[in-house]
Amino acid sequence: MRIIVAGAGLIGRTLALDLAKKYEVTSVDIKPEKLRMIRSSKVRKLQADFDNRADFLKLLHEADLVVGALPGSFGITRIADVISSGTNTIDISFCPENPLKFNDLAIKKNVIALVDCGTAPGLTNMILGYHNSFSEVKSFKSFVGGLPFKREQPYEYKAPFSPMDVIGEYMRPVRMIEKGKLLTRPSMSEPEFINIPEVGTLEAFYTDGLRTLLYTMKVPFMSEKTLRYPGHADKIRLLKETGLFSDQEITVKGEKIKPVDFTTSLLFPMWELKEEDEDFIALRVIIEAKESNVMKQYTYNLFVPYDKKTKTHAMARTTSAVCAAVVNLVADKKYTKTGVNAPEYVGSDKANFEFVINFLRERGIDVKREEKVM
Amino acid sequence: MRIIVAGAGLIGRTLALDLAKKYEVTSVDIKPEKLRMIRSSKVRKLQADFDNRADFLKLLHEADLVVGALPGSFGITRIADVISSGTNTIDISFCPENPLKFNDLAIKKNVIALVDCGTAPGLTNMILGYHNSFSEVKSFKSFVGGLPFKREQPYEYKAPFSPMDVIGEYMRPVRMIEKGKLLTRPSMSEPEFINIPEVGTLEAFYTDGLRTLLYTMKVPFMSEKTLRYPGHADKIRLLKETGLFSDQEITVKGEKIKPVDFTTSLLFPMWELKEEDEDFIALRVIIEAKESNVMKQYTYNLFVPYDKKTKTHAMARTTSAVCAAVVNLVADKKYTKTGVNAPEYVGSDKANFEFVINFLRERGIDVKREEKVM
Repeated sequence: MRIIVAGAGLIGRTLALDLAKKYEVTSVDIKPEKLRMIRSSKVRKLQADFDNRADFLKLLHEADLVVGALPGSFGITRIADVISSGTNTIDISFCPENPLKFNDLAIKKNVIALVDCGTAPGLTNMILGYHNSFSEVKSFKSFVGGLPFKREQPYEYKAPFSPMDVIGEYMRPVRMIEKGKLLTRPSMSEPEFINIPEVGTLEAFYTDGLRTLLYTMKVPFMSEKTLRYPGHADKIRLLKETGLFSDQEITVKGEKIKPVDFTTSLLFPMWELKEEDEDFIALRVIIEAKESNVMKQYTYNLFVPYDKKTKTHAMARTTSAVCAAVVNLVADKKYTKTGVNAPEYVGSDKANFEFVINFLRERGIDVKREEKVM
Repeated sequence: MRIIVAGAGLIGRTLALDLAKKYEVTSVDIKPEKLRMIRSSKVRKLQADFDNRADFLKLLHEADLVVGALPGSFGITRIADVISSGTNTIDISFCPENPLKFNDLAIKKNVIALVDCGTAPGLTNMILGYHNSFSEVKSFKSFVGGLPFKREQPYEYKAPFSPMDVIGEYMRPVRMIEKGKLLTRPSMSEPEFINIPEVGTLEAFYTDGLRTLLYTMKVPFMSEKTLRYPGHADKIRLLKETGLFSDQEITVKGEKIKPVDFTTSLLFPMWELKEEDEDFIALRVIIEAKESNVMKQYTYNLFVPYDKKTKTHAMARTTSAVCAAVVNLVADKKYTKTGVNAPEYVGSDKANFEFVINFLRERGIDVKREEKVM
C-alpha cells in the first residue's frame, strides 16, 4: 500500500511517521525545511508545489491512497483532483466548503473518500455516529480546544494548525441545530466557563465546527464550542469590531490593503507554536440519548498533553492518530463504503468505532466515558 | 487688537467666537467646511494652508497676536515663525517638542509667547503655579479626561482633539517626578479607579502630560493621569502589544506600510466626536503643600458638560475659555513677561489666577476647591 501524505506541517509529519510503521509512505510539501523535520528514513520525502496541478496529478499515479493534511484553503481543489484520479483519500484539511458535494463523483469513480478525520471534526463526529447507530440522540454538545500550557499575554494562544484557519473559525457565523432547525449564531457568542481538571477554568464560545454533521445527522440539538483561556475571545472580538479582520480592501496612504492581511502579519508570529512549545488538547462531548425508553447522558472527556519524549504536539498526536486509524480501516478493507464519507459513518459501525478508540489508547490518547441515567 | 486664530477645529472655532466679543478676530484654516461652522459674522474667515510657509508669514503681518489651535504635529514650526516675526502668541497646539527652547529668541524679539494654555496642560499648571507662589508644594497630582456621556463599545471613547495626539499620549513613555527625581514610567501604567460624582467610576492611568512643569517647578512629587471609562486602557494596550501602533514599516503582500497609519485609519472614524455628541470634562488636581508650617491638602474638582444650547463640546468650552482668559491678560497688558512662558507663570500672580478662575466661572466653568489640614 503506497500512501502519499500531502503536507508536512505539525500534523502531516506526525501522521507520516505513524503510517510508515506499516505502509510505504511519501511525505510531500513545498517547503524542504518542513520535510527535513521528518527525522526517519522510513518516510520518503518529496518537494512539490500543490499549486502546480500537473505535478500534483502526476504524483497521484504513484499512490494507492492520499492523505490530505494541507491548510484549509488548499483542501477542496485537491480533494476533487484526487477523487477524479480514482484514488482513495482521507482528508484532514478542513476546507471551508462542503466536501460532500463530490459524493456522486466519488461513487462514480468507485473511490472511498473520508473527510474531516481529525480531532474535532473527526473523533467528535465518530462519537455521535456511534451513539446515533443504536439510540435516539436528543442532544450533542462538543467542546474542544488546543492550547499552550504556558499562558503568555496578551493572547495566551498558539495555533497548532494553520492560523488563517483559526481566524476563519473566529469570523464565520456559526451554524447549529436547535429544536431540529438550522440556526445561525454570531461567531464566538455565548461564552461560558468550563472547568477542565488538568488545567483549570477555560472559556467556551460558539464556533462553526459542526460541518458534515449538519447534513448527515437528524439530532434536534447540536452545537460546538471552542475552548480558550478566559479573555482570549474578548480580545479577538475587539480586533474584529475594530475592523482589523475585514477582507474588504481599504486605502492607507495610497496603498490598498486588506485589513486581515495586515493584522495577521502582526498576529501570526505571536501565535507560532514552536517545536518546543508544550501544548494540550481538551475535549468534552456531552450526548443525551434515549435508549430503550431510558434517557441517558454520556460525557466523553479527553485530555492529551504534549509528548516530551518525542517532542510531539498534542494536536499533532491526536489528530494524526485519528486519521491514521481511519487510514488503517480503509487500507485493511474494514471500511469500504464508496463516496465522500464523513467520520460519523466510521463511528456508526461498533467494531470500527472500538478499533479507533483502541488505536488511540495504544498511542496514549485515552478517551474517558462517564454514563448516567437522567 | 487684531487676533489671528490658526486652526478652526472644535476648539479653535469656539475660541474665535469668544474672542470676537472684544477683539478683531480672523479665523484661519485649510478646510472651508470648518470655517463655515463658525456661524458668526463677527469672525473673519480665511482659508489658508499652514504648510505653505510664505502664505503663513504674510498672514502674520496682519496680526497683533496669534493664537495657535492646530494639531500638535503642526504646532512647533508655526510657533518659531510667529516668534521670529515679533508677534505675541498664545498656543494650545500641545506640540510634542519642548517649546521652551525658543525662550531666548522670544526675549530677543520682545515677544510674549505663552504655550500649553488649555485645560491640561493649562488650567492644571496655573493651579500649581498659584500654590507654588505662596507655599512649599510637596506633591502635585493631576487627573483629567474628556469623554462622551454615551458609552459605546468597544472603546467608549470619542476624541475631542486631534486623535493622533491621543495616540501619541498613549504611546510616549511617561515622565514624572518622584522624590525630586525625573523618572520614566511606561505609558498607561498604574491604573486606578477614580470616582467622579457626576458620572461614576473612571479609570486613571499615567500619561506624559507634565510638559513644561518638568522644567519650571521644583516640586518633589508630580504626576499626571488620564481618565477613561474602565477597560479602555486594556484595549489600547492590547493593540499596542500586538504592534498595531508601531511606526516601523512592515511589508504586507508587497506593500510597505506603517502599522500606526493602518490602525488609525480604522480607529479614528470610530473615535470621531460629532457635533451632536455630548461630552464632558472631568478634572481633579490634588496638591499637598506646607503653609506656615502646616501641611494642607487642596483638591480642585472641575466637571464641565456639553453645552446643549450652543452645541459646544465640553473640551472646546473649557480649553477655549482658559486660552481666551490668557489672551485677555496679554491683550490688556496684565501679563507682560517676554520669552516663552508656561501657564504656571500666569497662575503665580494671584490677581491673574483669580481673573482666569472668574473668567471661567462667567462661562459656566466652575472650578471647585476643597481644603483640609493634613
